[in-house]
Amino acid sequence: MPASRPARILRIAMNGVTGRMGYRQHLLKAILPLRDQGGVTTAEGTRVQVEPVLVGRDAGRLREIAERHGVRDWTTDLDTVLSDPSVDVYFDAQVTSRRVAAIRAALAAGKHVYTEKPTAETLTDAVDLARAARQAGVTVGAVHDKLYLPGLVKLRRLADEGFFGRILSLRGEFGYWVFDGETQPGQRPSWNYRHEDGGGITLDMFCHWNYVLEHLIGPVEAVTARTAVHVPVRRDELGHRYEVTADDAVYGIFELGGGAIAQINSSWAARVHRDELIELQVDGTRGSAVAGLRRCVAQSLSHTPRPVWDPDTPVTESFRDQWLEVPANADLTGAFRWQWEEFLLDVVAGRPHRHDFLSAARGVQLARLGLRSAEEGRRVEVPGIAL
Amino acid sequence: MPASRPARILRIAMNGVTGRMGYRQHLLKAILPLRDQGGVTTAEGTRVQVEPVLVGRDAGRLREIAERHGVRDWTTDLDTVLSDPSVDVYFDAQVTSRRVAAIRAALAAGKHVYTEKPTAETLTDAVDLARAARQAGVTVGAVHDKLYLPGLVKLRRLADEGFFGRILSLRGEFGYWVFDGETQPGQRPSWNYRHEDGGGITLDMFCHWNYVLEHLIGPVEAVTARTAVHVPVRRDELGHRYEVTADDAVYGIFELGGGAIAQINSSWAARVHRDELIELQVDGTRGSAVAGLRRCVAQSLSHTPRPVWDPDTPVTESFRDQWLEVPANADLTGAFRWQWEEFLLDVVAGRPHRHDFLSAARGVQLARLGLRSAEEGRRVEVPGIAL
Amino acid sequence: MPASRPARILRIAMNGVTGRMGYRQHLLKAILPLRDQGGVTTAEGTRVQVEPVLVGRDAGRLREIAERHGVRDWTTDLDTVLSDPSVDVYFDAQVTSRRVAAIRAALAAGKHVYTEKPTAETLTDAVDLARAARQAGVTVGAVHDKLYLPGLVKLRRLADEGFFGRILSLRGEFGYWVFDGETQPGQRPSWNYRHEDGGGITLDMFCHWNYVLEHLIGPVEAVTARTAVHVPVRRDELGHRYEVTADDAVYGIFELGGGAIAQINSSWAARVHRDELIELQVDGTRGSAVAGLRRCVAQSLSHTPRPVWDPDTPVTESFRDQWLEVPANADLTGAFRWQWEEFLLDVVAGRPHRHDFLSAARGVQLARLGLRSAEEGRRVEVPGIAL
Amino acid sequence: MPASRPARILRIAMNGVTGRMGYRQHLLKAILPLRDQGGVTTAEGTRVQVEPVLVGRDAGRLREIAERHGVRDWTTDLDTVLSDPSVDVYFDAQVTSRRVAAIRAALAAGKHVYTEKPTAETLTDAVDLARAARQAGVTVGAVHDKLYLPGLVKLRRLADEGFFGRILSLRGEFGYWVFDGETQPGQRPSWNYRHEDGGGITLDMFCHWNYVLEHLIGPVEAVTARTAVHVPVRRDELGHRYEVTADDAVYGIFELGGGAIAQINSSWAARVHRDELIELQVDGTRGSAVAGLRRCVAQSLSHTPRPVWDPDTPVTESFRDQWLEVPANADLTGAFRWQWEEFLLDVVAGRPHRHDFLSAARGVQLARLGLRSAEEGRRVEVPGIAL
Repeated sequence: MPASRPARILRIAMNGVTGRMGYRQHLLKAILPLRDQGGVTTAEGTRVQVEPVLVGRDAGRLREIAERHGVRDWTTDLDTVLSDPSVDVYFDAQVTSRRVAAIRAALAAGKHVYTEKPTAETLTDAVDLARAARQAGVTVGAVHDKLYLPGLVKLRRLADEGFFGRILSLRGEFGYWVFDGETQPGQRPSWNYRHEDGGGITLDMFCHWNYVLEHLIGPVEAVTARTAVHVPVRRDELGHRYEVTADDAVYGIFELGGGAIAQINSSWAARVHRDELIELQVDGTRGSAVAGLRRCVAQSLSHTPRPVWDPDTPVTESFRDQWLEVPANADLTGAFRWQWEEFLLDVVAGRPHRHDFLSAARGVQLARLGLRSAEEGRRVEVPGIAL
Repeated sequence: MPASRPARILRIAMNGVTGRMGYRQHLLKAILPLRDQGGVTTAEGTRVQVEPVLVGRDAGRLREIAERHGVRDWTTDLDTVLSDPSVDVYFDAQVTSRRVAAIRAALAAGKHVYTEKPTAETLTDAVDLARAARQAGVTVGAVHDKLYLPGLVKLRRLADEGFFGRILSLRGEFGYWVFDGETQPGQRPSWNYRHEDGGGITLDMFCHWNYVLEHLIGPVEAVTARTAVHVPVRRDELGHRYEVTADDAVYGIFELGGGAIAQINSSWAARVHRDELIELQVDGTRGSAVAGLRRCVAQSLSHTPRPVWDPDTPVTESFRDQWLEVPANADLTGAFRWQWEEFLLDVVAGRPHRHDFLSAARGVQLARLGLRSAEEGRRVEVPGIAL
Repeated sequence: MPASRPARILRIAMNGVTGRMGYRQHLLKAILPLRDQGGVTTAEGTRVQVEPVLVGRDAGRLREIAERHGVRDWTTDLDTVLSDPSVDVYFDAQVTSRRVAAIRAALAAGKHVYTEKPTAETLTDAVDLARAARQAGVTVGAVHDKLYLPGLVKLRRLADEGFFGRILSLRGEFGYWVFDGETQPGQRPSWNYRHEDGGGITLDMFCHWNYVLEHLIGPVEAVTARTAVHVPVRRDELGHRYEVTADDAVYGIFELGGGAIAQINSSWAARVHRDELIELQVDGTRGSAVAGLRRCVAQSLSHTPRPVWDPDTPVTESFRDQWLEVPANADLTGAFRWQWEEFLLDVVAGRPHRHDFLSAARGVQLARLGLRSAEEGRRVEVPGIAL
Repeated sequence: MPASRPARILRIAMNGVTGRMGYRQHLLKAILPLRDQGGVTTAEGTRVQVEPVLVGRDAGRLREIAERHGVRDWTTDLDTVLSDPSVDVYFDAQVTSRRVAAIRAALAAGKHVYTEKPTAETLTDAVDLARAARQAGVTVGAVHDKLYLPGLVKLRRLADEGFFGRILSLRGEFGYWVFDGETQPGQRPSWNYRHEDGGGITLDMFCHWNYVLEHLIGPVEAVTARTAVHVPVRRDELGHRYEVTADDAVYGIFELGGGAIAQINSSWAARVHRDELIELQVDGTRGSAVAGLRRCVAQSLSHTPRPVWDPDTPVTESFRDQWLEVPANADLTGAFRWQWEEFLLDVVAGRPHRHDFLSAARGVQLARLGLRSAEEGRRVEVPGIAL
């Protein structure tokens, strides 16, 4: 389709595209396809083209990527890019430790900012960044890709449709067996298992659970967590034994605004007897649903069976067959690209993006409070963050 | 096959056989079939016949049951039965509130005692009963029927065979949707939902979880629980609306001797997307298993897949098909009868029954501590019970 | 991905690349892909490129192959190649009868040597070659490709994981129906059936069985074999009838170090009622597995059924469904290339290759002793080979 | 159907009907149904009724069986029965140690004799019995029930139809996993594992293999066997550990008249990856078949695929699907009854039964020679037995 001339071009400085996430998910699967289709189109029909500017530290690899994909501009000099008035958006997919400084600089330069998560390593930094963003008055967003996956989109749609009635509870199960390196190499990097290197499944997953719960049901008001180191000795990438110092499983109970309870297990030491690695069940007065990242099945009150608890009698119903697939009714692929589109349209419209730095900060907060709950053996309330 | 003359006859006073459990599970499915097959046979080959004496408060129903099943003796006078030296065993299937006094009397009369659970409404009473039993020097037992169901027998056998390696965790899911009486009547009695009547799912289920965990993995050393009243208003048996005062769901985390963690959800307000109403997953270093009350599937380390967590890529494996059914390799039906046989052989041999009143008391204790944990918002350690 | 300059280039004289195995398996599927991906990379991250030098007797075919695949160097003069100091490795895929002399020359010239099997036609030659290799102090290897096939890799992993417990026995079945040339031409060359031409299935397969057994379970300590000529007359490539003088089937029993027994049938006169042409079943105290060259299924003690031998009662279980696929959990394709990579990394590291000429000599030894056992009608012990 | 008056009544003294085999297989499933259908009918149309006389040592059990099944005569006095001229046939299903004396007495009394196998504990006794039978001039038979099972009947029919062409080889696999009593009780009696009690799988199975091979292909002319004790310690019926002194697996190679080779593994320590516990494959020049006790599939030369041995290429054919079920085309159930009918018709006709005492003696001989082969580590020829 020959595209008409775009009304506007958004130039996006993409920092960290030599990394796996930055390259594959953001450049390859989001920005380049958006560029190749002629950009995004606003509700009013205005077409806005996108133009990436690759930023990084390895000139050779940047040049190679730029050439391979027909990207004109690339640079190893972040400052110059940020001072270039033609650049509208700064995107950050660097390692977490380098993120805060770069985003601060971008905000200071008046750029809109979109970033991989977590936004910072500490809650203080994350909150400061949210504050800086608010002061800058630009549109900022943090990647909340899970929310754009088909399973969660369907869950959200069920909630919007009133399918659940009042939501009572959510039960989540996430994880899989990560080999310990003895007979088969582990399929996660060893730093994940070292507290001193920022490892641990609580830090890794609670920021996700925060936005999932917030988005599907309501804000987390209190957390009770129990962490565990189920496999205390593992072999690293070179085959050397090391002691695990970070949690490889966390059992969490979350109290949500509105009174619902969420119970979510996250584990790298459990085998998968589910349809997907992640499984969320939402129960409500009028219906329930079970979703993975892709599929979603639901059962309404009207389809609810009436089992009687009689241990001495074998089950005569096939409970799993009493749930019905929720159709996509749309092309739900491309989670990263989808959020990019939404963010860019927010930029064009000059409005806030719903998944902002405050939401990202709340994710960091929940992880920290979860760890504190486990350490102190008690339920911890989640205070609001004031900017 | 014509049976030879039994070496001995055990007379069993069965109190509460007009109730559903007492009649169906104990009289109909256990004692009468045992009687009709000529009793139980010891390891040394001695045959011991059983002879029920029906005890209850409703003479008409007792007579009717006795006649229907060819039982000679029945009475509404418990004292007389207990003072009859030809009666060897007292069995109690009354409502819980009448249990303690009756069992005390039976112990005082020197009878062996077998009873439905819980043994008492309060921990103090349950412990006192265990103490009295010890002093009486008779064989006592409490019904732990779940342990005799095929699914749990298989789980236990897997543990005995070393299939799991070191057990890391157990995850349990129990429950189903109990209708609230608005459009369909509830399938549980309304007292279950009233705290003042001894209701609540924690009291109902934690005594089960205690012996399941103790038997499969190790004693519970600490508990963290969060209770909920998900459906606060219901209609009772007469269709009257009432306020729910007892928990209809409880989210529990149990720390077990040996370091394993068990996380079990119990809910009367969740829909069933499982193969059975109850599902337990045990994960260990060398293998995992998922069991209901009947079926059990398992996956060894060597069959463990190696998924990589990549939300943007659809699942290409059928995880549930990577588990293999654990065969029964024996006739595993008849949980109640099975424990009865074991108990009676213990009586004949003059040895303790493994599921005694102390184990029953620990179940009551765990329920109480679970409720306290929920109230106080903190992890509660489980102290040992000294007799 | 642009590759950095390799730290070193290994030049490999490949003798016999005009033959099927040399061309397809070694040049096409191993060395050329290695070259095209930039060589092999050591554990320390050093990249070593490979560069083939084609050697053979047919100049025309060599030139054609070289041009087709962009190989610069080829020659019909082996001596010159061996005296070229820039050549690091000599590879031999010639017919067996020409192998010994060529490898001796390569060792004398100080080259590392990698070779197709068998290393020699006689045990004396095979042992002498192993001795010469040891004296030369270079890295030598013989192709043991079966060990690098997915099925055997999985079997070995199961053994490493302790899945089998103590291994009790191995049962192997190999073979297929080779047409006799009457109505359909035979799918094996006629020399395979002539003793005087080095034919016979024992000579062909026992060298494989030796390394398979040695690698999976333990060294062969004694062999009992019965050879057969099941189809005594066949038609050759020209349609002429000839008398078969070499064994077309061999029934072998192998006693292994550690006490296990292996029983393996090899036959070119049996039809295939198996999943693959080769099938190995390993039984151990804690589990069993059945593998072909690709697939592997396993059954643990805990999944073991409990059949009762009652000929008058039909089978009610589907025994084959009681086994579960062992996942690859890695890319296990490319057996030949995989061993090449391992060998080349051994060369770079200056260490021995695990499948050396001594292992190859033991294969020849087993074949010879198997034939002797058949001739003399007795069990033959396998003496150790001293270099 | 009202039956006409039988031309003759055969009275059969059945000794050992209180044992499992005697009662179930011979009385319940063979003689009583034959009686109830009015007996057997000769080719000429003559009907001969059968009338059992129960013989045994436990009067109570004999009376009970006699009453339950409407059998008029029973006795504990064997001598009287044998001296009763109205008794035509003596059948023996006692324990082996009591068999020889009883059969000798029956032969001396001029009775036709049918017996369970083995006919004797030693070869000498078995041969003597065969000699005595020949001298007595009566019809004698030994149970060869396997030959009357559908799978073997089909194999034999294929052979008779010339389906195989010249039979080249037979491969047999028999066995299953017998638990060692540690976590699950063993499903075979402990005496099976004690040499001093007549245990061992060679003694148990070689007498079967002898008649199977003889019947399907030809007499066994030489045997090479290797026995093993794979699981050296087990727990007995009372849970006590004991040392295994008898072979629990035997790997046998049999050379058959006509030049075919049979290789059969028998094991109580192997898991079953087959359709049935026993599997026999017969390969011939024109076709092959694979049979269990029930099913039989076959592949003719014309359906034979043409695989090429290329380890580096995955299998693209489903070899097992290239075999076609052999139809029963008749009611093939009731192996024991079927041989009884054949035996009784032989008695009526005054001709020898094909499965006579000499065939039984050859079974014992093969077991003994198999054990000798294993002990001496050599092939042992099977001498003919001269009566």
